[in-house]
Amino acid sequence: MASEKSKILVIGGTGYIGKFIVEASVKAGHPTFVLVRESTVADPVKNKLVESFKNSGVTLGYGDLNDHESLVKAMKQVDIVISTVGKMQIPNQTKIIDAIKESGNIKRFLPSEFGVDVDHQSAVEPASKTFDEKIQIRRAIEAQRIPYTYIVSNCFGGIFLPRLAQPIAEATPPRDKVTIPGDGNPQAVFNEEHDIGTYTIKAVDDPRTLNKILYIKPPNNICSLNELVSLWEKKIGKSLEKTYVPEEQILKHIQDSTFPMNVALAISHAIFVKGDLTNFEIDSSFGIEATELYPDVKYTTVNEFLDQFV
Amino acid sequence: MASEKSKILVIGGTGYIGKFIVEASVKAGHPTFVLVRESTVADPVKNKLVESFKNSGVTLGYGDLNDHESLVKAMKQVDIVISTVGKMQIPNQTKIIDAIKESGNIKRFLPSEFGVDVDHQSAVEPASKTFDEKIQIRRAIEAQRIPYTYIVSNCFGGIFLPRLAQPIAEATPPRDKVTIPGDGNPQAVFNEEHDIGTYTIKAVDDPRTLNKILYIKPPNNICSLNELVSLWEKKIGKSLEKTYVPEEQILKHIQDSTFPMNVALAISHAIFVKGDLTNFEIDSSFGIEATELYPDVKYTTVNEFLDQFV
Repeated sequence: MASEKSKILVIGGTGYIGKFIVEASVKAGHPTFVLVRESTVADPVKNKLVESFKNSGVTLGYGDLNDHESLVKAMKQVDIVISTVGKMQIPNQTKIIDAIKESGNIKRFLPSEFGVDVDHQSAVEPASKTFDEKIQIRRAIEAQRIPYTYIVSNCFGGIFLPRLAQPIAEATPPRDKVTIPGDGNPQAVFNEEHDIGTYTIKAVDDPRTLNKILYIKPPNNICSLNELVSLWEKKIGKSLEKTYVPEEQILKHIQDSTFPMNVALAISHAIFVKGDLTNFEIDSSFGIEATELYPDVKYTTVNEFLDQFV
Repeated sequence: MASEKSKILVIGGTGYIGKFIVEASVKAGHPTFVLVRESTVADPVKNKLVESFKNSGVTLGYGDLNDHESLVKAMKQVDIVISTVGKMQIPNQTKIIDAIKESGNIKRFLPSEFGVDVDHQSAVEPASKTFDEKIQIRRAIEAQRIPYTYIVSNCFGGIFLPRLAQPIAEATPPRDKVTIPGDGNPQAVFNEEHDIGTYTIKAVDDPRTLNKILYIKPPNNICSLNELVSLWEKKIGKSLEKTYVPEEQILKHIQDSTFPMNVALAISHAIFVKGDLTNFEIDSSFGIEATELYPDVKYTTVNEFLDQFV
């Protein structure tokens, strides 16, 4: 049986979303390979994760995006490549593309996406520039005729929900007041990270997702900021003081900020004011929705997710 | 008289720190040129700034980093090039270097720095990668034998002080509670943006800053987070509830965060836990301090800066 499952290489497997994808891959019975840098293994926090990978049966390979031979060597052992590299390495994924071309045996490549559909967004600078980097990787993959699936997983639940989507560091939902960009009505999508892993791994060798965008938009996880805040208020039995920030003021605020907070504000603007996660219909020639494809997956709803913080 | 002043081109002049540098250049009587993109002029917020530049006597030139001819043409008219491009354009400054080499008449280049001394920092990922981009530009300038000054302006007062240095979007200092990374004792440096503009413009044709780092470290603006919070508490006559976050927890938090908040947390860690702004002596072969060079400048102190928020 095991030999029938496609073999998966994850590059960026110790990163935020990477670890959930590695876990889902192992759980689904795929022989799973993770490329790690020596510096990652030396890092005390990451080392624990690397050890847990080993214990779960993951095969570790040492390598680096800048070491072409290490990439080709790792790819020769697998069928599928999933990149979950962090933002600073997005442009550097051209190195992965080069190695895929050379190794010649990769049946599908999933580049590091796991956010908005970068071809369907209207973000202002500087968020637009960060999305441009992902767009360029999409175009490079297509130009090289590499079979792909782009995972549009929308908002990470574990990042957005504990903050009620505010761009702040604290990871506990506010109990007194909340700031809402715009009028709070555009709909967003929030997904729990294990679910993102599960859907991603289901898609890797599904012919229906070949050269398509997989949109993870579970019906119960589509909600506006007003609905999200209201849901939280019901759970804690208390009203929050809400400050609505007009769009004009947000745009000014973005320009009066510096990196990286200006990026956080511009992403928030794109998602929660422009409604970029939901303001378009999925074009079935190019994309497909995950819960329609895999109705048997029991996903965590936004409602269930918030319960842990009450 | 005017013809004696060196002519200055600012690339990125409508950005956060760029506008203060343009203003300081005009005020000091330098013929001042600003390169703008057509998209910048079309932007309603930026357009007001562009108009105010024109009214103050700035010469606008249309161009773009990716348009080599536009860069060379602009450079032919000036003596000094100051880049204040934003984070996403830092690597792209190799295009400015190429144009400086071709134009052949530029007496000094100030690349987009205006932060920590990237050659003296111990930031963890992903902040380290953002600093690496500036390091690479430094090395490219030096390899091309282009005369330079690097402006290490430390923390922007207008960004860090209204938040008491917390990585949050709100721009009003907290009156109830504050989160302090580490023990709050390492010393940081906070400078008002007009002062950064003033010192930068003074340095552009000063032989003492040629091929040197200009450190802006006014004695009254060096303070720890504990001192900053205490100063604010005295001003509002009230104690804040302080939460100290141990370093181990910060490192975990960085890894449990996604872009761009992980960068904000890692920068905060470098500055306020590692003390990267002050944990080294200035090597006089490579750097020089601004208030020692220009003791006549009346800079805004941290103490004065905070008064506006009381």
